[in-house]
Amino acid sequence: MPANVFLGACLPKLSRVAVCGGTHGNELSGVYLIKELMKRRREADDEEQPILVLSNPRAAQQCLRYIEVDLNRCFSHDALNAPLSDSAPYEVIRSREINAVLGPKGSADSVDFICDLHNTTANMGLCFISCSDSDWISLHIFKYLQLCIPDIPMRYLHFDLSHDEAYSLDSVGKHGFAMEVGPQPHGVVRSNVYTTMKTALELVLHWIRLFNCGTVFEGGPVDVFTLVKHVDYPRDCSTHDIVAAIHPLLQDKDFCLLNPGDPVFQTFSGETITYNGSESLYPFFINECAYYEKGIAFSLSRKSRVNVPSLRANRDQSR
Amino acid sequence: MPANVFLGACLPKLSRVAVCGGTHGNELSGVYLIKELMKRRREADDEEQPILVLSNPRAAQQCLRYIEVDLNRCFSHDALNAPLSDSAPYEVIRSREINAVLGPKGSADSVDFICDLHNTTANMGLCFISCSDSDWISLHIFKYLQLCIPDIPMRYLHFDLSHDEAYSLDSVGKHGFAMEVGPQPHGVVRSNVYTTMKTALELVLHWIRLFNCGTVFEGGPVDVFTLVKHVDYPRDCSTHDIVAAIHPLLQDKDFCLLNPGDPVFQTFSGETITYNGSESLYPFFINECAYYEKGIAFSLSRKSRVNVPSLRANRDQSR
Repeated sequence: MPANVFLGACLPKLSRVAVCGGTHGNELSGVYLIKELMKRRREADDEEQPILVLSNPRAAQQCLRYIEVDLNRCFSHDALNAPLSDSAPYEVIRSREINAVLGPKGSADSVDFICDLHNTTANMGLCFISCSDSDWISLHIFKYLQLCIPDIPMRYLHFDLSHDEAYSLDSVGKHGFAMEVGPQPHGVVRSNVYTTMKTALELVLHWIRLFNCGTVFEGGPVDVFTLVKHVDYPRDCSTHDIVAAIHPLLQDKDFCLLNPGDPVFQTFSGETITYNGSESLYPFFINECAYYEKGIAFSLSRKSRVNVPSLRANRDQSR
Repeated sequence: MPANVFLGACLPKLSRVAVCGGTHGNELSGVYLIKELMKRRREADDEEQPILVLSNPRAAQQCLRYIEVDLNRCFSHDALNAPLSDSAPYEVIRSREINAVLGPKGSADSVDFICDLHNTTANMGLCFISCSDSDWISLHIFKYLQLCIPDIPMRYLHFDLSHDEAYSLDSVGKHGFAMEVGPQPHGVVRSNVYTTMKTALELVLHWIRLFNCGTVFEGGPVDVFTLVKHVDYPRDCSTHDIVAAIHPLLQDKDFCLLNPGDPVFQTFSGETITYNGSESLYPFFINECAYYEKGIAFSLSRKSRVNVPSLRANRDQSR
């Protein structure tokens, strides 16, 4: 076999890249980072830079997650293509605007890569959320960041949805992910969380430049967490109020293995409720503020190892 | 001097006591603790128990700090006695209802003691906030809790306001304080914070029972932090957006001495801004979520020592 035969994957260059922040208007690291990048853009006027989008400006202005409906649930193929009524919620209209700029989703015209900036009250560290566990671009970026900033807890989380079904903003691009950084209270910016997000985003963009310049990235194994199910709080049958909080032994233990019988809730009168599943799984989004209304106290995932092939950009790309 | 002469302070018994939660509807430890106490009350029907008030039920229902205006700024003498227009905000109307039940503020009919439950995103531990540094009842309760739960960081914070000027709900009572527990994101309940609040409240009510039974409490020195001033975030002149976050070296360092020249902010482009005051002071409410809109990044206080006299209840009280 000749030495110059490349046995990995070859993918098109990532010519059009977008960074979005404020998809949830009270997740402030993303809001202030996108505003900072926009300010620098005005000063530098560098055309090689990514497209910058403040996704939900009204929600950001009012420091709310959303005005009428959750913008980050508006980007499935069906949602983007349903008839638009006169009384459509603000975020539904906004999702069409974003799809017009960065999409249309699923078309050849969609941007090559989207990084959507998010924060969580959960102790998630730096988490990449994608609807695919075989997007070699996203997995290689994750692998690169693990190498560059090994002291930051970092995971790749996979929501097993088809590209059509995927409802999050990042699914408008050909590749991409939500970059979720926590813990940070909504409506608050913590400088350590902001700096982690800023550093990670710079490395993502640096990887893309390296890739576009023809760098060959070595393959290898990557651990991926795949969503299995959501778990709601224990609730009062009549009022639907929650009657327990996350147990102190589970709080902040995102991505630490949860075994059958482990404590998961502590009721407001002091009793412990244990995990009654039959399989040990990895919890995440533990006590995320925005998920109380969605009926999610935490989610559970299964860990698997994906073998990522070596990767380089197509050499003779004419685009 | 005969051994049975009591040289301390004698004060009337605390016959009517109120516990309020949900004065800010998204401070969830207080919301769920008051609901839990109400539930237990229905089950036990014990008349000796305190009056329980869910202060802002509409805000609690929607998990917001307030609906129209901040309820905990509506209880100054002037605010409570101003003419009430037809278009008065919900919280202004609600403050009158609460004043009718627990007050009227400043009158002989007002309740003897109010404990108002709050949470903060700041690393305040367990903090008692009062408009007086000579309310022997509140100071003795604080002293008692320090003794009972020495492993919980605990401070007494004094906002130097006359009883008339004091705008917080607890000022409706003859004695009382806000019990502020953090850090906890608004819209989230953390079981450790909930448990701290529950334990502290039980000890407050236990102290009141001991006091009413004639227990003599020894006096002694108590450290009190008195508000000196508030410090706002650096802001953009035209947009009024903040341009910096609390510096990582100040974040979570509530009640740790801040010296001139110490870092206080980190701009979103990475520069450090230092404290340019001339006096070393104690910061608190560092990065409190609700204070972004009030223009407060943190507040500064001076520490002093108050000599609290020994205390017992009047023996021949007929009330």
